[in-house]
Amino acid sequence: MVYITRKATFSAAHRLYNPKFSDEENERIFDKCNNPLGHGHNYVLEVTVAGHPDPDTGYVLDLKELKAIIDREIIEAVDHKHLNYDVPFLRGIIPTVENLVVVFWRILESKLPSGKLYRIRLFESDANWAEYYGEPVEVKVQEEG
Amino acid sequence: MVYITRKATFSAAHRLYNPKFSDEENERIFDKCNNPLGHGHNYVLEVTVAGHPDPDTGYVLDLKELKAIIDREIIEAVDHKHLNYDVPFLRGIIPTVENLVVVFWRILESKLPSGKLYRIRLFESDANWAEYYGEPVEVKVQEEG
Amino acid sequence: MVYITRKATFSAAHRLYNPKFSDEENERIFDKCNNPLGHGHNYVLEVTVAGHPDPDTGYVLDLKELKAIIDREIIEAVDHKHLNYDVPFLRGIIPTVENLVVVFWRILESKLPSGKLYRIRLFESDANWAEYYGEPVEVKVQEEG
Amino acid sequence: MVYITRKATFSAAHRLYNPKFSDEENERIFDKCNNPLGHGHNYVLEVTVAGHPDPDTGYVLDLKELKAIIDREIIEAVDHKHLNYDVPFLRGIIPTVENLVVVFWRILESKLPSGKLYRIRLFESDANWAEYYGEPVEVKVQEEG
Amino acid sequence: MVYITRKATFSAAHRLYNPKFSDEENERIFDKCNNPLGHGHNYVLEVTVAGHPDPDTGYVLDLKELKAIIDREIIEAVDHKHLNYDVPFLRGIIPTVENLVVVFWRILESKLPSGKLYRIRLFESDANWAEYYGEPVEVKVQEEG
Amino acid sequence: MVYITRKATFSAAHRLYNPKFSDEENERIFDKCNNPLGHGHNYVLEVTVAGHPDPDTGYVLDLKELKAIIDREIIEAVDHKHLNYDVPFLRGIIPTVENLVVVFWRILESKLPSGKLYRIRLFESDANWAEYYGEPVEVKVQEEG
Repeated sequence: MVYITRKATFSAAHRLYNPKFSDEENERIFDKCNNPLGHGHNYVLEVTVAGHPDPDTGYVLDLKELKAIIDREIIEAVDHKHLNYDVPFLRGIIPTVENLVVVFWRILESKLPSGKLYRIRLFESDANWAEYYGEPVEVKVQEEG
Repeated sequence: MVYITRKATFSAAHRLYNPKFSDEENERIFDKCNNPLGHGHNYVLEVTVAGHPDPDTGYVLDLKELKAIIDREIIEAVDHKHLNYDVPFLRGIIPTVENLVVVFWRILESKLPSGKLYRIRLFESDANWAEYYGEPVEVKVQEEG
Repeated sequence: MVYITRKATFSAAHRLYNPKFSDEENERIFDKCNNPLGHGHNYVLEVTVAGHPDPDTGYVLDLKELKAIIDREIIEAVDHKHLNYDVPFLRGIIPTVENLVVVFWRILESKLPSGKLYRIRLFESDANWAEYYGEPVEVKVQEEG
Repeated sequence: MVYITRKATFSAAHRLYNPKFSDEENERIFDKCNNPLGHGHNYVLEVTVAGHPDPDTGYVLDLKELKAIIDREIIEAVDHKHLNYDVPFLRGIIPTVENLVVVFWRILESKLPSGKLYRIRLFESDANWAEYYGEPVEVKVQEEG
Repeated sequence: MVYITRKATFSAAHRLYNPKFSDEENERIFDKCNNPLGHGHNYVLEVTVAGHPDPDTGYVLDLKELKAIIDREIIEAVDHKHLNYDVPFLRGIIPTVENLVVVFWRILESKLPSGKLYRIRLFESDANWAEYYGEPVEVKVQEEG
Repeated sequence: MVYITRKATFSAAHRLYNPKFSDEENERIFDKCNNPLGHGHNYVLEVTVAGHPDPDTGYVLDLKELKAIIDREIIEAVDHKHLNYDVPFLRGIIPTVENLVVVFWRILESKLPSGKLYRIRLFESDANWAEYYGEPVEVKVQEEG
C-alpha cells in the first residue's frame, strides 16, 4: 500500500457551547472558545487515501480528483461559514476539531472512486490538531436548547 | 537604525458588510466574505519597531516587553472574538485586513517605551496580508444600519 | 498608503543557459542549473499593491480580483510549463528569478483596476528569492543559438 | 523503538505520460501534468528509520550519516535533473509521487548501517504527498514508445 | 479513537558528549555537536493523545489543559536552559533527540487526566526529528566523568 | 535594481549578560535569557543583495556564490558554537539579535563580488527577528568582568 495525501484549507467561524449546560458551565468548560458570537480559524484539512498505484498511470487516485471530491463534499459546505449554524451535516454537533474529523470521515469514506480512506487530519491552528483513522467513535448530536 | 519584529497570533470571526449597501450589493461586493453569521481566521500579526540598540543591553526594545504590549493592547481585545461586534475600537469599521492594520497602528504607536513603530503586518491567511507604515490614511466609521 | 499582498504558486521547469556561450561556459557559469533537459521548482509569487482603502469597502483592491488577475496574466501561462520553451512572454529571456520578477512586473503593472503595483517577490525555493519594485532595469533578450 | 527522520530536498522536472496511451488519452488522464516539455517541483523527501538508541551515543543512527546516505543514493541522482530522462533507476517508470516513494524505498532499504527503514514520505508540493512503509507494491516499468 | 495533538516550543542549549569516551572519540562520534560550550536549538514538541471525544464536550482532552500539563512538566524545566546541566530529569543522559522523546514520554505518560498518551514527536530542527510511541526502550544514564 | 536573497541557518547557544551589571540586574533585565549556562536557537539568516541582472547571465549575483560567502564568513564561525565564547568577531558583544545583524553586515558588506548588500535579516525564532539596512549604528564592546 502507498498512502497519498491532499491538503485543502477553509476559513470558518465556530463557537464551543452545549445547550444542556448553564452559561456558567459553558464558560468554565469552553473558556474563550465559548464567546457567544463565535471566533474563527483558518482550518487545514489533510485527507489520506491508501491503495496500490495503478500500473498504467502510477496513481493510487488522481490527486486532482481527490481535491475535487474534498472541495465538493466538504469545503463548499464549510468555507467562509459559521460551523454551528450554516452547515447541515454539523447541526447539533459541538464543532471541536475531534468531532469534525469524525464527521468529515463519514462523509468522505464512501465517495472515493479508488483506494481506501486512511486518515483525516484537521488543524485548527498550527498548534492544535486532530487525526482520525475510522475506528468506532460516537459523535453526539445535542438537542437544541 | 535596526528593525526588530515580534509576531503574535489571534483567532477571530468577522464579516465583510456595509450597512449602507443593499443585501445584493453586499453579496456582490464582498461575496463569500459577506456570510451573515461570519467566518473566521487565524490572524498573524507582526509588529516592527525601529531604533538603536541600547549600548548596555543590546536591545532596541525588549521583545518580551513588546510582546506584553501587543498582548495587552491588541490580542486580549480580538482573540477568540467576533471583530464586527465584540471589539470596542473596531465599532463601525469594516474589518478588512487593510483597515485592521491602520487601526492597530493607531493603538500601538503611542505605547512603545523606546524605539519608533515602523510597520504593522497582518496576515488573514498565508495567501492574503496587508502592511502599513503610518502614512496618512482614512479609515471610515460606517453608520450602523 | 496601505500595502496588500496576494500569494500564488506555480510549478514549472526551466534551464539556465545562454546560446552565445559554449557548452563549457554554460556548464561553468550555470552549473547544475544548466542540465540540458531542465529541472524544476514550485515557485511562490507574491504581488503587493499600494493604495488607500476605499471608504465604503475597506479594500485597497479586492484580493479575489487581484488573484484573478495574477491567475489570468501569469499563472495560466507558466504553471506546469517549461519556462524556456512554453511561455511566449519569456522567449529568449534567461529564466533566472531576477529576470522573472522584472518580466512579471511589466505584465501586471498596467492590469490593476485600482492601487499601484508596489512589489513583486518570487521564491524559486524557500532559500532563494528575488524582489522587484519597478526601478529601471534591463532584461536582455538573447538571440537564439 | 524510536523513529528518527531526516529531511532532504531536491528540485527536478518531470512529465506524466505513458507511451502506450495515445496523445489524447495522456492529455485526458494526466491533464496539465502531461505538458510535453515537462514542468517541475521542489520535492521534499523525509526518510524515517526505526531502532533503539545506542546506549553510549544516544543515536538510533547518526543523522549526519543518514543525510550522507540520502544525498549519495538519491539526491545526487535526482537534484536539478529531469526525472523522466536523466535518472537511471527511474527509466521507464512514470514519475508520480506514489511510484517515487516506492523506488526510493527499494534503494535505501539495504543501505542503512543500523536501524530499519520505516517510512519514506515525499512531498511534490505542500498540498500533495505520498508515504510508503515497505508493504508489497508493484511499480510497473513501461515499455518505451 | 481520535488522536489530538498539541504543539509547544522551547529554546535550549545542549552538547553531545559521553564522559566514558576520550576527547578524540567524542569529537569523531559527535562531530560539531560535541562543541565543549554547547550549541542550541529551537525545539518543537508535539504531544499526541488518543481517546474518545466526550459526548457532552466533544473533547478527547481539553487542549488548553494539555498545554498546561506540557508547560508545567516539560517546558518550564527545559526552556532557556542547558539540557546537559540545568535539567534534573536529564542528568547523565546524552541529550540526543532520540533520548529526549523517551524521557518526555515517561514524564507525561502518567499525567493525563483523560485519554492515553499516543506519540511524542520532537523536532531539533526542521530537518531532524524523532518520534516515540511508548515501546520498550532503554535510555542509559552515563556515569559522570 | 533587483533584490535577491539567500537564506542560511545555524544552531548556536548564547546568553544575554552584561558584566557591568550585578547578577540581580542581569536577571531582571535579561530574565530567562540570562541563564548562566546559556540556551540556544536555530537561527535563520537572510542576506539580500541589490543590483542589476547581468545581461548575459540574468544574475545579480550567483546565489550559489552568495551561499558560499555566507557559509565561509558567517556560518562556519557560528554554527554549533556558543556565541558568547566561541566566535572571535563577537567577543565582548552582547549577542542580541539586534547586535548580531549589525555585526554580520559589517563582515559581509565588503565581501560581495557584485551587487550591493541591502539587508540582513536574522530570525532567533519564528516569533522574534531583526533587520538591518546599514544605517549608522553603534554596537558596544563590553569590557570583560
